[in-house]
Parts: sequence; structure tokens; C-alpha cells
Amino acid sequence: MKVDEWVKKIAARDRSAIARAFTAVESVKPEHEREAIELIEKLEAISQARPIEKKPLRVAITGLPGAGKSTLIEALGRFLTAQKKTVAVLAIDPTSPITGGSILGDKTRMVELAQDPLAFIRPSPSGAFLGGVSPRTRRALAICEGAGFDVILVETVGVGQSEAKVAEMVDLVLLTLIGGAGDELQGIKRGLLEMADLIAINKADGAQTKAAEITRSEYENASHISGKNRKVLLTSALEKRGIDALWAEVESLRQSRIRSGDFLASRSRQRLSWMWDDWMSLLQTELKENPEWSKRLKELEERVSNGTLSPPKAAKVLLENSLQKI
Amino acid sequence: MKVDEWVKKIAARDRSAIARAFTAVESVKPEHEREAIELIEKLEAISQARPIEKKPLRVAITGLPGAGKSTLIEALGRFLTAQKKTVAVLAIDPTSPITGGSILGDKTRMVELAQDPLAFIRPSPSGAFLGGVSPRTRRALAICEGAGFDVILVETVGVGQSEAKVAEMVDLVLLTLIGGAGDELQGIKRGLLEMADLIAINKADGAQTKAAEITRSEYENASHISGKNRKVLLTSALEKRGIDALWAEVESLRQSRIRSGDFLASRSRQRLSWMWDDWMSLLQTELKENPEWSKRLKELEERVSNGTLSPPKAAKVLLENSLQKI
Repeated sequence: MKVDEWVKKIAARDRSAIARAFTAVESVKPEHEREAIELIEKLEAISQARPIEKKPLRVAITGLPGAGKSTLIEALGRFLTAQKKTVAVLAIDPTSPITGGSILGDKTRMVELAQDPLAFIRPSPSGAFLGGVSPRTRRALAICEGAGFDVILVETVGVGQSEAKVAEMVDLVLLTLIGGAGDELQGIKRGLLEMADLIAINKADGAQTKAAEITRSEYENASHISGKNRKVLLTSALEKRGIDALWAEVESLRQSRIRSGDFLASRSRQRLSWMWDDWMSLLQTELKENPEWSKRLKELEERVSNGTLSPPKAAKVLLENSLQKI
Repeated sequence: MKVDEWVKKIAARDRSAIARAFTAVESVKPEHEREAIELIEKLEAISQARPIEKKPLRVAITGLPGAGKSTLIEALGRFLTAQKKTVAVLAIDPTSPITGGSILGDKTRMVELAQDPLAFIRPSPSGAFLGGVSPRTRRALAICEGAGFDVILVETVGVGQSEAKVAEMVDLVLLTLIGGAGDELQGIKRGLLEMADLIAINKADGAQTKAAEITRSEYENASHISGKNRKVLLTSALEKRGIDALWAEVESLRQSRIRSGDFLASRSRQRLSWMWDDWMSLLQTELKENPEWSKRLKELEERVSNGTLSPPKAAKVLLENSLQKI
């Protein structure tokens, strides 16, 4: 299949064309890498041409394990597809660099949504990749963006770095918490909290309703004090309550950001950090493969390995060598 | 104070000289950066000259929040200082890139150890830094290594990326778990598990003893099946039980790795990734400051921002430009 034809099929949200695109951008083979870049560039052009109100909304769903992120995503996804909106779900996984094994499970966690013709769930990939989490997440988003889903939900796992990276790639960050969680978790939440545009206190059902309400007012007060004024909403993904109000708030945030210009400004900034990350990663690969450089590198690496040269000093030598020629 | 004098004081574990070194390597001012590099290089030379059995042992303490990592570190630290061993504790914190605020608390969490003259606790820094988590963690370790503490304990927080990075900088990874944690946490643990050289089921006290024992045998079985044969030990940091057996296992792992050559081989690999990280970070800084480059960069950045050029394409142009001159 020619790339142009492939791009057309992706833009028509052909499921197998999309699936093949994910496989291509996740490949470790250099010949696939070239194809992947061409594909991403063409999809990018389609995405850029789309008017602002038609651009897919990218929402990250963050929160500690146990907050019910998957269930909430399924409920949100079904809510959206019921309105004939198309939805893509990506799972971002700080894949172990040791085995490349996937931490998150697969789409069997979202049984109903996985069978929904308007939804596309990309389970977290397993295996090794060229580049780190960031390049491949950006590419996965570029595929979904090119395909023109109405909404792209990005599920993150864990705390800290992966969330921070994902926050650089989405329009809005939704933090999922549960009621009555102990103080020990609060330290972690603070970091996640700073990135959040909106908070859902999930599992507000049954015996946990009261605890969820208390937690909600605590976070609401904290939000007023910090002056950030993030909305804090109660949801029960299980009983599918609060989902409509949550989405209404997401939409209202999108509209106000479009009006203020923040929506596009943030996307522009995100494109710049994408460029930098890609450049640095290409540069590393090329320098390793360039014969003259690889010889010089080997000598330095040997001295660094055997302890006769310090890593920061070697880095300085490499820098001076690169700059002389630049 | 001249750098040579400063280095001498650090090597004699002078607390204020060490504290000043941390401040210097964490500074965002370029004039401090030069001083910091000189300092690190001289400390590195001292560390390299040290015979293998005298090298500080670097141990990462990982685990989900609530597993009692801080209490375990305090118990381990006090156990070691009781044997006249010197101990440094570093807290590695996936600091929020938004405010630079620190997620972890400070050394008030380790009350006894903080007052121990043989221990040095470096609370997690707050504020912005040149470079990311990796460069400053490597430098913090280089200071402790130069100071010649017998043991360096590195506390990590969260899951995934930060742990993976820290695992690249230490000799051993100790995973802290608790008994009877629900299935929802298991997904996370798998990632941490792969990096672990040793597992402590902590909080094996009071009503939790039984649950800890069950969890221990589960992990022990899993460990046998996977063929990795990691030891799984019970500890109660609170009641200070199991600490001696835990440390005996750490020491035995160190000795067997020294004998097999893995200890030094792993340190050599770690020095190489340090060199690469430092080089790439220096290169970014220099290119931003070089007038010719910064002009070219600005033009490309403008086109990427306004959507007329795709980030991967711009990265390719930048790469070609750099390579022409290299």
C-alpha cells in the first residue's frame, strides 16, 4: 500500500489502516522508521489543515492506581459514542526499559468500549522501540489526530515523569481521585494536582459516597485557596453517574481556551518540544552510525569505561568536537 | 574557597562542604555550572582511585507510596551507623516540571537518622535546575561517592520512569512492598519488580504479620518460577526487625557481584550513559546560545509553531544541518 493511500484510509478511520500505522511507528526496524516519518508528516498536514473547532480534543486521564481510571474512560467513551462522537483511547505506559514488557493490561479491561464501532482502543504496546516514551507517544497521538477522532483519551499510569510528559502532549488533564484516601497518598497527589485542569472524585457510589463527598469539598477548598479554581466533580464510573456533568465541564474548558487563544498557544509550544525531542534523538542515532564519529566515540567510551576519564569531562570533549565543526 | 580545598573537605566528609556542593550542582546559574563541573571531575578522580571493596555501595530503595520506604531507610541507616558505617541518604523526586516544587517531604521524616553524626541526609531539592532529573541525580551521587560514605541509600518515589533512571545509577535495587495489597497494585509492581535485586515485605508487624508472610511466599514462588531467584525478606522497620538479615543479603549480593565482575561492569555501563546524557544536554544548551544556530532555529521554530512545518520534518532539517558541518 502506498503511503498516500494509507493516509487516506487512516483519515477515513479505517481500523486496520490505523492499527497498521501503530505497528509501523512502534517498529524498531530502521526501514520502518523512514516509512513512519513519512506517514506522520502526511497525517500532520491533514491535522494542521483542520479548523480549530474540528480538532480532536486530547484529554489525559491521570491518577494513582486504584482510582478507577479505566472504568472512567470506558464510561466517558460510551457517553461520547452514544452521541455519535468518535473516540480513541491510548494507554501510556512507562514501559520497563529492561524487558520492554507492558505494565498495563490490554483492552479486555474496557469490554463494552472495545466492541463499540465508534471507538478505537490502542492497548499499551509491548516490545522495544526506537526512542523513548515521548517519541512514540507523540506519534501515536499524531495518528489519532490525523484520523480525526472527535476525542482522544490518554490513560497514564503511575506518578511523576510519565504524567508530566503526557501533560505536554494534551489539551486538558483530568485527575481521577477517590474519596477518603489516606494521608500517605497526598504527597504524590500534590504533583499530579499541579498538572490537573479538572478533578473527578470517582467511585462516588455505595458505601464510598460519603467519603467521596468529603474529599470533594476538601479539594474544592484547596482549589479556591490556591487560586487555580479547578472544578472538582463527583463521578461513579461504575453506575455511570456524573459523566455528563464531567464532560460538560471538559467542553466548557475547551471553549474558553479556544476563545482566550490558550488552546492554540499550548499546541504550538507542544510542537516545539516535539521538534527538539525528535532532533536530539535523531542526532544520537546518526552520530553513533557516522564512521568518523563512531571511532572518536569508541576511544572516549573506552576511557570513560575504564575510569581514566570522567563522564562530564568526556561530554565536554564531545561537545567541543561537535561545535568546532558546526 | 578554592575547589581543591573544597574537594579535600568533602573527601573528609565535612558536612558544610558537602551541603555547599549540593547547592552548587543544583544551581541554575551558568557561573555555578562551571564550578560544579570542575568539582564533580575532581571528586570523580578520587572515587575512581578507590579500590573496589572500599567503593560506596549504592542502593536504591523503591516501592509504592505507603510501603514505608522512609521508615525502612531510617532503620537501615541506624543499623549501619551503629556499626560505625557512614551513610548518605538521597531522595530522588520526579519534581514537577511546572513549579519545580518538591513532592517528597524533608528530612524531618527521618528524625533519628537526621541527628546521627555518621549519617548525611539530603532532602529532595526544590526549585528549578539546569538539566533534568538524571544529570542532577548523577551529580548528587558523585558528591556522595567522592565523600566516600560507606553506603548511599537512594529513595525513589512513584513508579516507572524515575525508578528506571535511578536503577541505571545504583549497584542494587531494593523493592519495598507490604503484605496483602490488592490486585490493583499488582500491575504497577510488575514494572518495579523487574528492576529489583531484592525484595523486602515491610510492615510485617502486629495485625499485618500474617498478610506479610502470605505475600512473602507468593513473591518467593513467583521469583522461583521466573528463574530470577530474588530473595524475599520480611521486615518491620517500625519494630526494627529483619533489618540485619536484609543487610546481610545486600552484602552477600555485593560480594558475589564483585567476584563475578558484574559490579564493575555495571558501573562502567553507567558511566557511559552518564557521558551521553551530559553531552546531549550540553549540546542543547550550546546550540541555543550559538548566534548562527539560534537564528536558524528561530526560523524553524516559527514555522513549526504556526503549523507550516511538521515537528519531525523540522527535526530532520536540523539534523541534516548539524551533520553537514560535523
